[in-house]
Amino acid sequence: MPDKIDPPHATGAAADTVKKHSQPHELVFHAGWFCPFVQRVWIALEEKGIEYEYREVNPYAKEPHFLAINPKGLVPALEHHNKALYESLVLLEYLDDAYPDDSPLRPSDPHEAGLVRLALQQISNVVVPAFYRYVQAQEPEKQKEGHEAFVAALRDVHKQWFVGGEAQWARGDRFGWVDAALGPWVARFSLLEKHRGFKAEDVGAEFAAWAKRILERPSVKSTSSLPENYESVYRRYFEDTAESEVAKATRKGEWLK
Amino acid sequence: MPDKIDPPHATGAAADTVKKHSQPHELVFHAGWFCPFVQRVWIALEEKGIEYEYREVNPYAKEPHFLAINPKGLVPALEHHNKALYESLVLLEYLDDAYPDDSPLRPSDPHEAGLVRLALQQISNVVVPAFYRYVQAQEPEKQKEGHEAFVAALRDVHKQWFVGGEAQWARGDRFGWVDAALGPWVARFSLLEKHRGFKAEDVGAEFAAWAKRILERPSVKSTSSLPENYESVYRRYFEDTAESEVAKATRKGEWLK
Ligand SMILES: N[C@@H](CCC(=O)N[C@@H](CS)C(=O)NCC(=O)O)C(=O)O
Ligand SMILES: N[C@@H](CCC(=O)N[C@@H](CS)C(=O)NCC(=O)O)C(=O)O
Repeated sequence: MPDKIDPPHATGAAADTVKKHSQPHELVFHAGWFCPFVQRVWIALEEKGIEYEYREVNPYAKEPHFLAINPKGLVPALEHHNKALYESLVLLEYLDDAYPDDSPLRPSDPHEAGLVRLALQQISNVVVPAFYRYVQAQEPEKQKEGHEAFVAALRDVHKQWFVGGEAQWARGDRFGWVDAALGPWVARFSLLEKHRGFKAEDVGAEFAAWAKRILERPSVKSTSSLPENYESVYRRYFEDTAESEVAKATRKGEWLK
Repeated sequence: MPDKIDPPHATGAAADTVKKHSQPHELVFHAGWFCPFVQRVWIALEEKGIEYEYREVNPYAKEPHFLAINPKGLVPALEHHNKALYESLVLLEYLDDAYPDDSPLRPSDPHEAGLVRLALQQISNVVVPAFYRYVQAQEPEKQKEGHEAFVAALRDVHKQWFVGGEAQWARGDRFGWVDAALGPWVARFSLLEKHRGFKAEDVGAEFAAWAKRILERPSVKSTSSLPENYESVYRRYFEDTAESEVAKATRKGEWLK
């Protein structure tokens, strides 16, 4: 039986943002309010100040009209002039390709863009799977392992890809792709704090200061629902009873392709 | 003990190409002649007609000077004005970013570029792991499974991402990223044919015709070594004794991050 999404719609600041984007538009954002991959793209849309229509999808329902947009049946997806694309990182590239003049999040320097793409690969292939393993771990021993692996993954990303020092954001003084791609998991740290005893400070003081700035960033705030609502969706993850593709793959010791 | 690479250098047409690119240059291509991920980037360099210096690396040796360029210790890597990048797909993006006027392989239309990026994700996440599982399968039963999964993965890519019909190349009449990213595995089909009884025709006649064109493409030919030399490198894969990162991950039922 597919996971029920309760509540079915965004709440808090995110509900206001949804409302502002309820008019039909040539750019349709197929989204799930609770989904961190969705939030990556949502942050990018808000940072770029692009007009779009927000449409809530329950991706677990695998409705035919949504499978026609994304055969993988996953949110996020974008439909622009009726042409669809999906996969959060592909969508980040798309938004900067299709709207190059609206505050690009991709660096204009080719080498810097390459470094950022390497960072995004590492976040998606190492940090994100470690997050789900940590969240779904049940035995104290596994939770301890999960904690260590998640902290180590974040430390590696911070050490390897954050410019550090006085910089506000991951790659310097401009909010960019690395911030947008990792930010949604930072917005879920409070769940980890409550259920698993994780603290951003475990990764390091500089990282924790960045995480704090992320939570204050308007594009992150305005795409975040109320904490208690994430709580009700993530409960199934913390109890390891979620039936999403990500949760099932994690349970099998695999990762989503 | 790391795998020995025998012969240590390219042979046949690829050896001539290496020779043409032996002069010092500001763009250094750190390569392994036998590596399909390397060949992706090599094909792109040749298609774009960019000048570069070819440097043979034994990635299994994990030499400190190479780890300083790519901490993952994998070929391919590029160093341009002493700044390094790696990961074949990141390098394909880089070459079109850094040399936009030299026959771009990335489509200029943002939606088409997005589709191609989705295709590259699928090739890298589904087709390539299926290739290694197939090659490393030992028991007849596993080899049969490997065959079926590899054929199915290629059929899916063909069905979903090839425009088909009269088109010469995956996405139409221009040779592009999909051709460059999948081509190196086509260049290794003859090994599968000999050791596992695979035929491109198993995927379908249209796919087989494309595969034939790939093998005749100058950029593919000029970056390919002699068949007997691939044979000597891949023997360890077919016997499942290879000790590369890819081979070890495949053996564990995982995939490289
Ligand atoms: N790799 C995808 C992952 C997207 C994803 O997993 N979305 C989840 C919601 S957070 C989903 O749609 N799940 C539907 C399901 O598991 O059936 C991306 O980066 O966009
Ligand atoms: N994801 C990498 C894979 C590169 C890769 O696996 N290269 C192999 C040679 S084909 C390598 O360097 N292996 C070294 C090792 O396994 O230690 C890419 O796309 O560039």
